[in-house]
Order: sequence, then C-alpha cells, then structure tokens
Amino acid sequence: MTDTRARRSATLGPYSPLFYDEPLEFVSASGLWLTDVRGERYLDAYNNVPNVGHTHPRVVEAIASQGARLNIHTRYLNDRVVEYAERLLDLFDPALDRVMFTNSGSESNDLALRIATQHSGARGILISDFSYHGHTQALAEITTGLRTFEGVGAHVRTIRVPDLDGADAGRDEAEVLASSLAEVDEAIASLQAAGFSVAAWLFDPVFSTEGLARLPAGYVGGVLQRVRAAGGLGIADEVQSGFGRTGSRFWGHQQHDIVPDLVTMGKPMGNGHPLGGVVLPAALLDEFGPRNMYFNTFGGNPVSSAVGLAVLDVLRDEDLVANSERTGRRVREEFARLAAEFPFLGPPRGAGLFAGFTVHDDDGRPDGARTKRVVEGVKARHVVLSRIGRHDEVLKVRPPLPFGTEESAILVEALRGALGDA
Amino acid sequence: MTDTRARRSATLGPYSPLFYDEPLEFVSASGLWLTDVRGERYLDAYNNVPNVGHTHPRVVEAIASQGARLNIHTRYLNDRVVEYAERLLDLFDPALDRVMFTNSGSESNDLALRIATQHSGARGILISDFSYHGHTQALAEITTGLRTFEGVGAHVRTIRVPDLDGADAGRDEAEVLASSLAEVDEAIASLQAAGFSVAAWLFDPVFSTEGLARLPAGYVGGVLQRVRAAGGLGIADEVQSGFGRTGSRFWGHQQHDIVPDLVTMGKPMGNGHPLGGVVLPAALLDEFGPRNMYFNTFGGNPVSSAVGLAVLDVLRDEDLVANSERTGRRVREEFARLAAEFPFLGPPRGAGLFAGFTVHDDDGRPDGARTKRVVEGVKARHVVLSRIGRHDEVLKVRPPLPFGTEESAILVEALRGALGDA
Repeated sequence: MTDTRARRSATLGPYSPLFYDEPLEFVSASGLWLTDVRGERYLDAYNNVPNVGHTHPRVVEAIASQGARLNIHTRYLNDRVVEYAERLLDLFDPALDRVMFTNSGSESNDLALRIATQHSGARGILISDFSYHGHTQALAEITTGLRTFEGVGAHVRTIRVPDLDGADAGRDEAEVLASSLAEVDEAIASLQAAGFSVAAWLFDPVFSTEGLARLPAGYVGGVLQRVRAAGGLGIADEVQSGFGRTGSRFWGHQQHDIVPDLVTMGKPMGNGHPLGGVVLPAALLDEFGPRNMYFNTFGGNPVSSAVGLAVLDVLRDEDLVANSERTGRRVREEFARLAAEFPFLGPPRGAGLFAGFTVHDDDGRPDGARTKRVVEGVKARHVVLSRIGRHDEVLKVRPPLPFGTEESAILVEALRGALGDA
Repeated sequence: MTDTRARRSATLGPYSPLFYDEPLEFVSASGLWLTDVRGERYLDAYNNVPNVGHTHPRVVEAIASQGARLNIHTRYLNDRVVEYAERLLDLFDPALDRVMFTNSGSESNDLALRIATQHSGARGILISDFSYHGHTQALAEITTGLRTFEGVGAHVRTIRVPDLDGADAGRDEAEVLASSLAEVDEAIASLQAAGFSVAAWLFDPVFSTEGLARLPAGYVGGVLQRVRAAGGLGIADEVQSGFGRTGSRFWGHQQHDIVPDLVTMGKPMGNGHPLGGVVLPAALLDEFGPRNMYFNTFGGNPVSSAVGLAVLDVLRDEDLVANSERTGRRVREEFARLAAEFPFLGPPRGAGLFAGFTVHDDDGRPDGARTKRVVEGVKARHVVLSRIGRHDEVLKVRPPLPFGTEESAILVEALRGALGDA
C-alpha cells in the first residue's frame, strides 16, 4: 500500500486528494460493500457516484453489451441516445424539455453558465459563499468552498445561505428569510451598479458543501424570483441532489416547489461512468443552438446512453427513491437518538439519503478536528463516510441508494463507538 | 430513421450536428466496419475515436471486467490508475513526468490553460486563426474555426498558420517561415502592449482544423521559442494527433522535434470511453497543486484507467503506430495518383493515418461544395469520411488505426468513383 502511494505521488503528484490519515486501497466492491487490498470489508456510507450500488450487474451488463455492439458520437443518428433523452426528460417538469449530454458535472455547469450568460446578455453570477460546482476555469472563478488560485471573479457576488440549525439557530424564521433575501437584493444591486447585471444564480438544491443547511421556507423560491426579476436564470446543480438522493422526489429542486430555468447533472447519473447533462427549455436551446456550434464528442454516445438508461431502470425497478426517503428518515431518527446521547452533536440534517449532523466542541462551537476523529473512528469500525461544512464540522452520510435497515444499524453502531471515543 | 431524427430533434434539439444530407444511422460496428439500421455495411475511413478499431474485444473486456470489479474515484488508493499513469508517462520525454486525468479533451485543454495562466501570471493566449480546442467557456473564447457567441476574447491573438501547399504555395519556404514568425512576434508584442502578456500558445501538432497545413521546417520550434521567451508555455493539443495517429511516432509533437511544456489528450485515448488527460513536468504541477484543490470525480477511475491501459496494450501488440505510418504512406501514394487523374485535386496532405487533399473548382480555387459532393459520393459507395479546412475544402481521411491495404484499396476506388462524378 505504501508502494502504491509512493508510485501515485511520483506520477499523479502528491496534491490529488486522498481520504484518511492512512488512505484506504480498495480492490473490489459490490452493492454497499467495499473490499480493500488486505481483504477487509467496509460498509459504504459515503459514495453517491455508485448511486444504485457498486458494480450493479445491470449497469455492468449495459456497458458490456453496448460496448461490444457500437460506441460512436452523435453525428450519426443513434436510437439509444434518443431513448435515453426521452426517458430522462420524462422525469422533469414539462417546461424542461430539451437535454444536452456531457461527460461530467463540471462540463454541465460550465455549459449552463454559457447558456445563461448568452441569454441574459449579462455577466454577473450569484453564488453561495461556501460552495463548489466544478473545476473548469469559468467555475474556478465562482468557487468559494475550496481553494482556487483564480479566486472569485469581479463579476461574482456571494451570498450567505441561511441555516436555521447553524449560524441562524434560535432566530425567528421569517426574520431569517427576510434578511437573507435582503442580502440577495443587495448582491443583485451591486452587480447592476458594477455594470455586470445578473446572468445566473447557480445553486445546489441540498446546499451540501454548505453543510446541508436548513433553510427558512420560501428561501429558494424567493431568491429565484429576485434573480429572474433582474433578468437572470436559476440553475439547479443536481450533481449532488439528483437521481433520488434527497428521497421522496427524484430531483432536489422539487423539494423547494420551484422549476429552475436550467438543471445540471453529473456524478450519480452513470453510476461511475463519466456522464453528465444539462436540461433546459426548448426556448433556451433555440437561442443557444444557432449561436454556437456546440458538439461534445463523447456526450450522448451509445454506451453512455445505455449506462444512463440502466441507472434509470434500476432506480425504478428497485424502488430506490422510496428507499432513499424511508432509510433516510430512519437514519435521521437514529441521529436524533445519538444527539440525545452525545451533547456535542447538533440535530439531524439533510434529506433522504444525504444525512449528517454538526459536531461541536464542549463549548458548543463547530469542531472540525473532533469531526475528523469521528470519521477516522468510524473507519476503524469498517464504515466509510466523510465530513463537509464551512469548518468541516458536519458529518457526511451519503451512501449508495440501496442502503437499508441492516446497513443503517451497522452505521449507527460504528458512529456510537466513534463518538464515544471522540 | 425519419422517426429517430424527429424524436432526436424533439429531445436533443435540431442544432446538434449530423453528417450528410440524409444522416446515417448505425447500429453496430466491428474493427473498420459499421453496419446501419438497414443492414448495409460501411467502411470507416473517418473515425479516430475508435482508434484501435470499433468494439475492440480487448477494450470491451477491460471495461466489462473492471466494471464488474470496482469503479470509484481516486480519493482512495487505486493501483489501476497508477499503473496507467506509469505506462502513459513512459511514452513521453522524461521532462514530462506527471499526469492529471480528465474525461475529455475539453476538460484537458481548459485545465492546461488554467495551469499556464497561473504559471505565467499572464492572461494572453496565442491561437491559430482557424482552430478548435473544445467547448468550455474559456475555450469558446479562443475558438476561431467554428461559431461561438463569445467570440475571440480581448486577451487572445490569432496567428495564421502557414501552408506550403495552400495559401503559401509557390513561395520560398525560408521566406514563409520568416514572415510567419514575424507575425508571431507581432502578436506577442500586441499582447504585451495591451497588458495581457503571454500565458500560452495552444496548438494542434497536425494542424487539422486548418486543413492539415504543410509547414515550413522549423515553424513549430520557432513559435515555441518565441512564446517561451515571452514567458508563456507551449501546449500541444494531442486530441487529434496523439496515440499513433500521425504514424512513425506516438505523438504528433514529436514530428516537430520539440518537447512541449504541456500535452493535452482526449478523443482516441479511451477508444470512445470518455477519457482525457494533461501531461506536464513535475515543476508545473508543484506550482499548480498547492494553489488549487483540483479534483476530478471520474478522472482516473479504475474503469477509465483499465480502458486506457487496454488501448495502449492493443496499440503495442498490434503494432498500430507502424501500421499508421505504412498505410498512411500508401494512402498518400494513391492520393498522388488520384491528383494526376483529377486536375482539381491538390497534393496529398497529412501524416500517418490523418490524410487528405484539397478539392478545387475548375479555376483552381478551394471548392467546399465540390468537396461535399465527393463526401456524399463516397458515402453512396459505402465509405464514410468527411472534410475540413477554412472552406471545408480538404477531404478528411482519419480511420481507426488498423486500416490496412485492403481498406485502402476500397477507399481509393470509392474516391475515384465519387471524384469522377464531382
């Protein structure tokens, strides 16, 4: 293992991030279980990319059989991509009736910003002050939740996403809503005063990088209304929240009773196969299409489309969205019990199978170091998860969607042990 | 087929490009042959993405077996990605000793521009006045060879790539070199005068979008020297020219006896699987790494790495680089014969299995419409190829690398027939 790490450093460099003080080296996986190089098994309570379970046989079969038949770009007609586009669009509000396929969430968000910028004739972007949406140059300039050398561009205004279980705990909800929306009004006015005006608000409907913030009711709709009034578009980045992650509804934005102007997708879409997309109304595509010769070589190829179809099939046939809701509810009930046992824990956070809680120090302040000890302690008990939030103080549980009762019990026992030591 | 086209238009929109007046709809492929929905077979003389041949069994086996074992990101140790990184880097000059994996040529070029911009502290980009390097926003601003709404950015200067068999035919080679390099000097001076200075020159070593230009000896080295003297980096975009495409040498840039500062890869790297990368010296990564938390979710995953390895194995075991050189030479000999038969053809162009010739009107001017008739006429004879160049006047032959004697003969006969009708 040391050898692999040294060889990795000598080829990929030492900067590409690794989890844990002593990184894990996995060699195989199935469903919810990972096996490392020593033959030890770990429960996966973290990974959302293998959304329908690791190495799901129907997904592997789709890749293998389409891969053996044909893999080619979309400049020839290709029934498979059309079938996938139809199936995917069926999952959206009828207003969102066109899709452009890409190979990652980064490509999707970069493209959505191009579309919104061209539509609005403006350059200004509104973004949460602690978020991440991808690694292209245009996205590096709107990154606030991690380090980029570009830094936030002059055309960007950041807004603090309210959190009724975090920085805004104890405040009146209506007052939090009003002050948060007033901050949005100020940001928009500032973009207008600087001559950038407003092209888009890009947001993660579950506000995951922000630590799964609990919002005042009406927040997302309120921001969206203001952005639209200023001529901008609302882009829902469903890379984290899409494909059943948040339970009960297929898309994270549906929890907020809104229809975004654009939706971007990535990570879970292909269960690990590089697949992303942008969904938008025909009117926006009819504007962008003639102005730009946009062609994505791998986007929408028959193998990627077959994989995407298989993921949708499994989500439906195994009723995984309902399972996400059901297990997520159970996990949060257990987290509430843990919070009663361990006074340094905040209340359960998140929706569906994106769950967490804040870890504090003994004086009630966010404690990233203690959260790290919990993550390492859970790993010692053979369960993988991670942490998020402004101070890395929010425990992050985001397993493949087949996560059920048995796995919840294992997770909670590992957590209880790790919390006792932390 | 009409139905597929209508359904495609109603989901992907009508802008996503299709080849031919009546698009082809393929349903399967093997090696060098594609089969359409009516059961008709076509020889593939065009597609470079299936670089080692359509649905190559070893590539399909690599996807299927690794996909059934494990597919996960690189935040856990992963021997497969290290093995691939080592194998890939072995193919480069020792100065280029680090690799960052991505999912496409666009992601690769976007990342390379970030690295060069951060390294130089400059913003200026030097680019050919008829080229294409990808679809992100940063790349749209340096796109000159096709339509983008962004247009060329203020920080961009375009240079005309000389062509001794095109616009510069008949001129003295040394004079063409001197005047072309003088144009580069002017562009650099202009970037400096505007306060942008020089971050990078991004170039395709085979100058394919430009129509496979024939350069004066020393051109690429001369530009590179000037760019470096101005503090910028030379980025070789090997999306077209890499992986044996240009014959005799593995990388297109090796034909120019230079070592670029960065190399970007895409299309042929994964034989259709979304796979790209940036190769660079450790010193550049050591600069970029600490300044940016760069993480690419799908980049370097075990399945993508297994596919990349299989492609390298097949290239080696089937001796495809030598075949690219050998067959490419034969194809150009045949093209020279065609040029003797059809006076409206220019001399053979390109290197290895990237070959073409210019089609003129009866007055000797570039004739894109006649080239289109040739492409359609070849299609009627069940061979697919395409066209490139400033006026779409250059026939584009760029088949999977196993293209051999038999396939060359079929291609030439189809061309002879189509040229007779054009």
